[in-house]
Amino acid sequence: MDVKVDSLKTWRRTHYTDEIKGEMDGEEVTVMGWINSIRKLGKLVFVILRDREGMIQIVIPKQKVSEEVFKIGKSLGREDVVAVKGKVVANEKAPGGCEIVPMEIKVLSKAHSPLPLDPSEKVPADLDTRLDNRFLDLRRPKITALFKVKSEMLKSVRNTFYDEGFIEVNTPKLVASATEGGTELFPLSYFEKEAFLSQSPQLYKQMLMAAGFDRVFEIGPIFRAEEHNTRRHLNEAVSIDCEMSFADDRDAMEILEKVVHNTLLHLKDHCKKELEILDVDLKIQDTPFPRLTYDEVVDIVNTKGVDMEWGEDLSRAGEKALGEYMEGFYFIINWPRDIRPFYTLPKEEDPKLCKAFDLMYRDLEIASGAQRNHIYDLLVDSIKRMGLNPESFESYLQAFKYGMPPHAGWGLGAERFMMVLGRQKNIRECILFPRDRHRLTP
Amino acid sequence: MDVKVDSLKTWRRTHYTDEIKGEMDGEEVTVMGWINSIRKLGKLVFVILRDREGMIQIVIPKQKVSEEVFKIGKSLGREDVVAVKGKVVANEKAPGGCEIVPMEIKVLSKAHSPLPLDPSEKVPADLDTRLDNRFLDLRRPKITALFKVKSEMLKSVRNTFYDEGFIEVNTPKLVASATEGGTELFPLSYFEKEAFLSQSPQLYKQMLMAAGFDRVFEIGPIFRAEEHNTRRHLNEAVSIDCEMSFADDRDAMEILEKVVHNTLLHLKDHCKKELEILDVDLKIQDTPFPRLTYDEVVDIVNTKGVDMEWGEDLSRAGEKALGEYMEGFYFIINWPRDIRPFYTLPKEEDPKLCKAFDLMYRDLEIASGAQRNHIYDLLVDSIKRMGLNPESFESYLQAFKYGMPPHAGWGLGAERFMMVLGRQKNIRECILFPRDRHRLTP
Repeated sequence: MDVKVDSLKTWRRTHYTDEIKGEMDGEEVTVMGWINSIRKLGKLVFVILRDREGMIQIVIPKQKVSEEVFKIGKSLGREDVVAVKGKVVANEKAPGGCEIVPMEIKVLSKAHSPLPLDPSEKVPADLDTRLDNRFLDLRRPKITALFKVKSEMLKSVRNTFYDEGFIEVNTPKLVASATEGGTELFPLSYFEKEAFLSQSPQLYKQMLMAAGFDRVFEIGPIFRAEEHNTRRHLNEAVSIDCEMSFADDRDAMEILEKVVHNTLLHLKDHCKKELEILDVDLKIQDTPFPRLTYDEVVDIVNTKGVDMEWGEDLSRAGEKALGEYMEGFYFIINWPRDIRPFYTLPKEEDPKLCKAFDLMYRDLEIASGAQRNHIYDLLVDSIKRMGLNPESFESYLQAFKYGMPPHAGWGLGAERFMMVLGRQKNIRECILFPRDRHRLTP
Repeated sequence: MDVKVDSLKTWRRTHYTDEIKGEMDGEEVTVMGWINSIRKLGKLVFVILRDREGMIQIVIPKQKVSEEVFKIGKSLGREDVVAVKGKVVANEKAPGGCEIVPMEIKVLSKAHSPLPLDPSEKVPADLDTRLDNRFLDLRRPKITALFKVKSEMLKSVRNTFYDEGFIEVNTPKLVASATEGGTELFPLSYFEKEAFLSQSPQLYKQMLMAAGFDRVFEIGPIFRAEEHNTRRHLNEAVSIDCEMSFADDRDAMEILEKVVHNTLLHLKDHCKKELEILDVDLKIQDTPFPRLTYDEVVDIVNTKGVDMEWGEDLSRAGEKALGEYMEGFYFIINWPRDIRPFYTLPKEEDPKLCKAFDLMYRDLEIASGAQRNHIYDLLVDSIKRMGLNPESFESYLQAFKYGMPPHAGWGLGAERFMMVLGRQKNIRECILFPRDRHRLTP
């Protein structure tokens, strides 16, 4: 690194690469980005410059640029960061129909070589190498595109919540007790006390219903100390949560359908370029989504040759069998009470069942929700029934004693949703810096 | 609790209380909420019903309602949750110019009595009692209003980021190493490894600049194991973070000014009712905000009788002295390099100083940022200079070797910003469920 790099000083980007068009022939522009590839001929240097929005060709002909500019052009290497001030030249042969002939070039950062990973996508790499060098991996247009879609997905989800009168809340991630029992929690010491990382905002969302917040949503991290390492699990993920008062399970499902449907529409509209890069043709599925009862699910799964007894949770094999049978998004409703969390409301007309639902996409569960149990005595019973101690839920239970409205809600896994939207097979692809059983860096 | 409560069944709210006006005289409506207060006369019951948006009077005259409805009316107690189907009656004497005469009432939840805290604001309570019973405390209109403003603040902040081309990102909260050294971190065990809770997304935001994401923002939790318990510190808070490439400290300050200014405008427009409840008259401060140099700060503080030597950080006494001198929002710039984090870029023309800035509101620091050090060799030097070991920053430093653009960014404390916007003196007022040295519940 004996090369001294230039300072930005007063230079600023005038255009992203995708904003430069043949019609701008003769216009002066400043672009900034990375050297995606470079071809050096005797008296001519071709550079493909990459920024977040695309790529553009920079042509450096010895006879048309200053000696200094040509010298810099010759010295450039792959993944160097440069700023180029130059003139747009319409050229039908150039990718995108135009190129830039530089008047000045600043080298803002030199890249070591060899690169531990090739961002130009010519050399494939396995997932672990990619994740170890995530900052390089993320330079690949397909990977960048996925996270631009994720940002737009979150924006769209929030817009639906705003439209439906939800207030955004932030609940604590450091908690004194477990949401659903003591397993799968990361413990830590909080000064003199023991604390845990929150595995769900569930209990806090519900307390906010007691607080009269009526409709709340939160998009934030959740932490699960699950030992199993699958393509569908992360130990730290982003959860999209909501809770609504004076509402039942069907109301909550309707909001969830709106969130999903509006997101599909929004992405189709606002992420055309990114979906094209990802080679994803999003289908807009109309609402309401199909509802399968748990009983129907048991039948289907058994018909497909996978054993499932009434009262069992869906196994992975069961999900796969179901995924062969069902297309697109669908709900599973009327679950047996005993395989759902204590805070789920049993059905009045058949207390073996409860008002829980899952949203599935083919064989993947992406969201889970229910009308909640808002009746103090019934809730204490349910906690005991699950073998848990009501005393460890004291500050939560307190909220049910002084006027708790009926309420319902759900949690949607942001990364699982992205697996569906981006057609990704491994959930690690859908999070910038995954945390799993073995990975804690970068 | 021998009272059996009603089910919601097909009933749904038709209006929030603040949507019901005198002009709707004779219209049938359904409202749902809590009994804020109740007055029982012989043949007449007056109820004030409260929901998230306001209050309305329900009048239950024995002669005008069914026997059943009157009986229910008589049985109601404070903070019971009810649904009322009734007719709007214009009445100039009623608060808000109208009231509801019920045709049917459902009691959805009965409240135990006495209440551990009075949500009707008649009886004051100390902060600890309030936080212990936060779900009741949050029912008070002033407290609800503050969190509605917080939700709108976050919405406005995101809108500015979207308008300015920022992508929303989610970085891990479980990290392998410390951002700025090993102090003030909560350690935990992550399977076989040691992990920490992230005290800032700093290093990840920067890696995303190496990834070419160009402009990113994140709004998420940060964790600091600070022992001191002040009115301005939390151990878990929400941080509004951004980072931008091909930009310097002045660009970052401009974005921060826009975020603050747009939020002021947005709240003034969209939170009229809430600001009135909070008795806050928001002043729209024009940009650019004043810039004080560190040198000027030292002078001012000393002039005000507080000792401060060049090279020292601002003490609390110094901040207070400064707050007496300065009104509104202002920046402090040109900080000595040695009291800022290693990732701050020194000034080329005077390497004793650096390109850091703080955004202050009177005596309160609400944001902190800088142009970052993007030059590998210089960064390694700075890490060593601070007495830290470059090896513990390996995966971070890696990102500076293969093309790192110049970049800048900042972090704005969401709760500190709310202290300013909501005129709150204790930061615990600005977070739903505060975490401090002593508090981990609810």
